[in-house]
Amino acid sequence: MTELYLEDFLIGRTFGSDQLTMTEADIIRFAEEFDPQPFHLDPDAAKATFFRGLAASGWHTAAMTMRLLVTGDFRPAGGVIGSGFDALSWPRPVRPGDTLRVESEVLEARQSRSRPEQGIIKVRGTTFNQHDEAVQVFVGNLIVLARPVGG
Amino acid sequence: MTELYLEDFLIGRTFGSDQLTMTEADIIRFAEEFDPQPFHLDPDAAKATFFRGLAASGWHTAAMTMRLLVTGDFRPAGGVIGSGFDALSWPRPVRPGDTLRVESEVLEARQSRSRPEQGIIKVRGTTFNQHDEAVQVFVGNLIVLARPVGG
Repeated sequence: MTELYLEDFLIGRTFGSDQLTMTEADIIRFAEEFDPQPFHLDPDAAKATFFRGLAASGWHTAAMTMRLLVTGDFRPAGGVIGSGFDALSWPRPVRPGDTLRVESEVLEARQSRSRPEQGIIKVRGTTFNQHDEAVQVFVGNLIVLARPVGG
Repeated sequence: MTELYLEDFLIGRTFGSDQLTMTEADIIRFAEEFDPQPFHLDPDAAKATFFRGLAASGWHTAAMTMRLLVTGDFRPAGGVIGSGFDALSWPRPVRPGDTLRVESEVLEARQSRSRPEQGIIKVRGTTFNQHDEAVQVFVGNLIVLARPVGG
């Protein structure tokens, strides 16, 4: 897998990922550690809540998305380093057994004036379930390295 | 702990949390599952990276923040249900041994026109380390229940 530099992140370029399935056990284990609320912990108790059934924590979906991103085609040299997000939303819940994948698209790219050896790219990352429904959308700003002189 | 309704989220009201310490083992375990990059996995390899030492995945900080939030003073009836974020950033890395806490502040609150039994509040959540330095800031929109009629 080739590592990518600022110059490679052309606006409009898209990247794919592998797929990962989120099990009920995964959802409950994550929730026990980080988001202990009934709709993420207990399939029965979840029925009477806003989610009307067990749903993954949005932060679990975000973490799985990160795994898909860093193990997928999107490989900036120096790593995936987020400096901040302009938007993050979960338009649909992730349910036990859902299989997720990520598509990312370069929206902007610019070299740093003060540190020309790096730049910022703005990326939209959309996480889809097995029905091609978006379950998470982010627009994030990432720090990437410019191609070394002579590199 | 009293559960809070839309009417209780007065603009400017603030909420605190307990504290949690993030260990090196926690940082590496989370990274192995969700964000397998050298600067989150290996204290030695991390020295030569952007972070100049082991740092927690931002998504780990976000997940720990969620735990602090849902176990803290901020207790909407119906749970903490995020509908989307206007901003999320990690101004400083979280290092092994850092102790985190969260402060949240209500920025806006409005009842839903189409579903008057609920509303949306906009909250700024700031996660601080033991030096009172911000390590994460979000501005998020949460769905909360209005107080039931006669309740």
